[in-house]
Amino acid sequence: MNSIKVGLLGFGTIGSGVVKVFQQNGSLLQSRLGFPLELTRIADLDITTDRGVVVDPGLLTTDAMALLDDPEIQVVIELIGGYEPARTFVLKAIANGKHVVTANKALLAKHGEEIFAAAEAAGVNVMFEAAVGGGIPVISAIRENLCANRVHSLFGILNGTCNYILTEMEEAGEDFATVLKDAQAKGYAEADPSFDVEGVDTAHKLALLCSLCFGTRVDFDSIYTEGISKVTALDIQYAADFGYKLKLLAIGKQVNGQIEARVHPTMIPKNYPLADISGVFNAVRLVGDFVGPVLLSGHGAGSEATASAVMGDVMAIAREAGTGSRLRNPPLAYPLSEIGDLSIKPMAEIASCYYLRFFVKDQPGVLGAITGILGLHDISIESMIQPHRHAAEAVPIVLMTHEATESNVRAALAEIDSQDVTQGDNLFIRVENKLD
Amino acid sequence: MNSIKVGLLGFGTIGSGVVKVFQQNGSLLQSRLGFPLELTRIADLDITTDRGVVVDPGLLTTDAMALLDDPEIQVVIELIGGYEPARTFVLKAIANGKHVVTANKALLAKHGEEIFAAAEAAGVNVMFEAAVGGGIPVISAIRENLCANRVHSLFGILNGTCNYILTEMEEAGEDFATVLKDAQAKGYAEADPSFDVEGVDTAHKLALLCSLCFGTRVDFDSIYTEGISKVTALDIQYAADFGYKLKLLAIGKQVNGQIEARVHPTMIPKNYPLADISGVFNAVRLVGDFVGPVLLSGHGAGSEATASAVMGDVMAIAREAGTGSRLRNPPLAYPLSEIGDLSIKPMAEIASCYYLRFFVKDQPGVLGAITGILGLHDISIESMIQPHRHAAEAVPIVLMTHEATESNVRAALAEIDSQDVTQGDNLFIRVENKLD
Repeated sequence: MNSIKVGLLGFGTIGSGVVKVFQQNGSLLQSRLGFPLELTRIADLDITTDRGVVVDPGLLTTDAMALLDDPEIQVVIELIGGYEPARTFVLKAIANGKHVVTANKALLAKHGEEIFAAAEAAGVNVMFEAAVGGGIPVISAIRENLCANRVHSLFGILNGTCNYILTEMEEAGEDFATVLKDAQAKGYAEADPSFDVEGVDTAHKLALLCSLCFGTRVDFDSIYTEGISKVTALDIQYAADFGYKLKLLAIGKQVNGQIEARVHPTMIPKNYPLADISGVFNAVRLVGDFVGPVLLSGHGAGSEATASAVMGDVMAIAREAGTGSRLRNPPLAYPLSEIGDLSIKPMAEIASCYYLRFFVKDQPGVLGAITGILGLHDISIESMIQPHRHAAEAVPIVLMTHEATESNVRAALAEIDSQDVTQGDNLFIRVENKLD
Repeated sequence: MNSIKVGLLGFGTIGSGVVKVFQQNGSLLQSRLGFPLELTRIADLDITTDRGVVVDPGLLTTDAMALLDDPEIQVVIELIGGYEPARTFVLKAIANGKHVVTANKALLAKHGEEIFAAAEAAGVNVMFEAAVGGGIPVISAIRENLCANRVHSLFGILNGTCNYILTEMEEAGEDFATVLKDAQAKGYAEADPSFDVEGVDTAHKLALLCSLCFGTRVDFDSIYTEGISKVTALDIQYAADFGYKLKLLAIGKQVNGQIEARVHPTMIPKNYPLADISGVFNAVRLVGDFVGPVLLSGHGAGSEATASAVMGDVMAIAREAGTGSRLRNPPLAYPLSEIGDLSIKPMAEIASCYYLRFFVKDQPGVLGAITGILGLHDISIESMIQPHRHAAEAVPIVLMTHEATESNVRAALAEIDSQDVTQGDNLFIRVENKLD
């Protein structure tokens, strides 16, 4: 068996991690495969910045198209990120009969259908374990090991930036803006953090997981996406008082021929498995009809953990190529003809328990007015705390409801807002008491 | 593409779970594959007992050899368990050019070398995800996703019976014998529980994981194996006082060209990831040089979770067969020619912290005598508790040591035993403070 040759597009943080794997574990890769795996070309617009790895200058090029047209290269790793030129490059690689490994969740969530169709037509593979959960083998678990299961539900902590911020807010009692600034200083958050903190990155990942789990196209724009920027340290504290932790969860469920697909801050009981996933760790809990619950956790980002996932995919493709097989398992773990179009349940119809936080004037009858309106909308209260009373200040009232529909909760809150009893921003946070 | 036909050997607990997957999720399997997967034959000595699933009587046979000689069957699932006739049947299936899926850790831990060599020679696959961790995709994670990593270490809770017993001992404060009886009544422990509670089952699984992680043959008999039958509820209570939980851990490490491979009761800090794996759940923590720590957990046993893993393997083989490929990834994730012979570090050379529990006569000088002997053997004490003093009774002394070598600890305890200061059984339990 001759060697299999790999080209790398994008020599940034993850790209340099990939180069390190080749350099540090090249003999391990060859030993496992039984033949050599070679990184023969690295393309980036910037090939002069020090990446912390020493590379033969002959490997480096600024000409991505030359790499994509190199007939010797069988596998292209795309680590450029974003929509363009990543999309053009990936489609070109496929058109040239090359397998693709990518960590680009934004690209796949938006242009996946086009890319996967091109790959199926060309008989090449597109693998993307690194796109969700960094080094955690979650994509593979769904595609391969758990593929005999109907997945009922999945719950993911999929963005290390958000989880770091929420963990710090909880531990230090600091508010969002302060912790975000600190996270940016430490390199855990981007200069423009909105993709992360507003939940968009998590929603990209959820779209991919839902397609894999439920065998359906997912319209990314239909995923309800709410980030963590409105959560206060006080809410995290109150959640703890009720016995909950606050996490930014990606939630996917399959119920009666529809799916739920939503990203939002969520309170979960503090003794539940995902509750102790702290800092930059990621985790996914899946519940299948045969396997029951499975939890996978690990480093959700970072150069080396992500490179581990990229190289796991490259090895899988090399093993296929080594036995003359192509496209053993299609990218979404179904042939495209089998992928359906399940609709996403509208948020108004979601049923959940809710955490409600109001600031009110400290005067008689306020609580009665609020609970009265909630009752009129079929929302019953499970428990209440009224913490930190300071005379003359607005007083917080914090309620935990029994299960209610989102439309009722929104209608009730609008009505409460329209009365002259609350002050400042009211907030509701969804509560998941079961995770199954 | 014609259908792929599967034969099942063993119609017991897991076997009936496999039948349920075919019946309940057959359309899902076909949809994912793009062609049908058919269970065409089930062999068991007992084909009259009600298994809770309705099966076409034409599928059932008591003649395993007829199944193994059926030229239509491409995949044989072996769920008989034990060494014989499982070994004979698996070798026969391989000789007949059939792929094999098995959940039989005992067979593979003892006869793996013979079976894997036969499979490589015949160009067929032997897959065994269900042999370790029930439905948790741990074998696959090592074989596929994490295969670009050098694995530094793995820590596993791999036996649901032991973990259930330890959890019950902790929560109810009951002693081993009482909880075992209760576990037997509930079906969580066998009538003869020794394979489970003495750690043998865990050691079988550890042998497989070490081969996969470290690319080495593992002599099963060289794995140090100590079960949980000597642990008392008191020790679990004292562990909690020190901030630890007690688990039966499988530990594999690669250090300086040797491996550690050992199974024993182990104290781990109570806020560590594996510490909250309770009851019949299993979990594995792996640390790789690129991926860092990864934790996988789920149902470690049971008909349905194990059937999920079996069927994941069957699907993987069907996908290979569907693209005309065979043996894409060899059973141990290395070609056999690359499998080495790392030696297992002798237990005497292991360095660890230790929990030491003595019952002593309540008289002056006893503690001094004990600590003096420990000091002479280079064992220093990190902390001590002397709980529950009752006049005239033997008094417990419980110590937590700094890191010491096992040979020194054993020598010191032998010397302490030989003095006239302790009463009854002394006990030491190894403590893992790092899990990396």
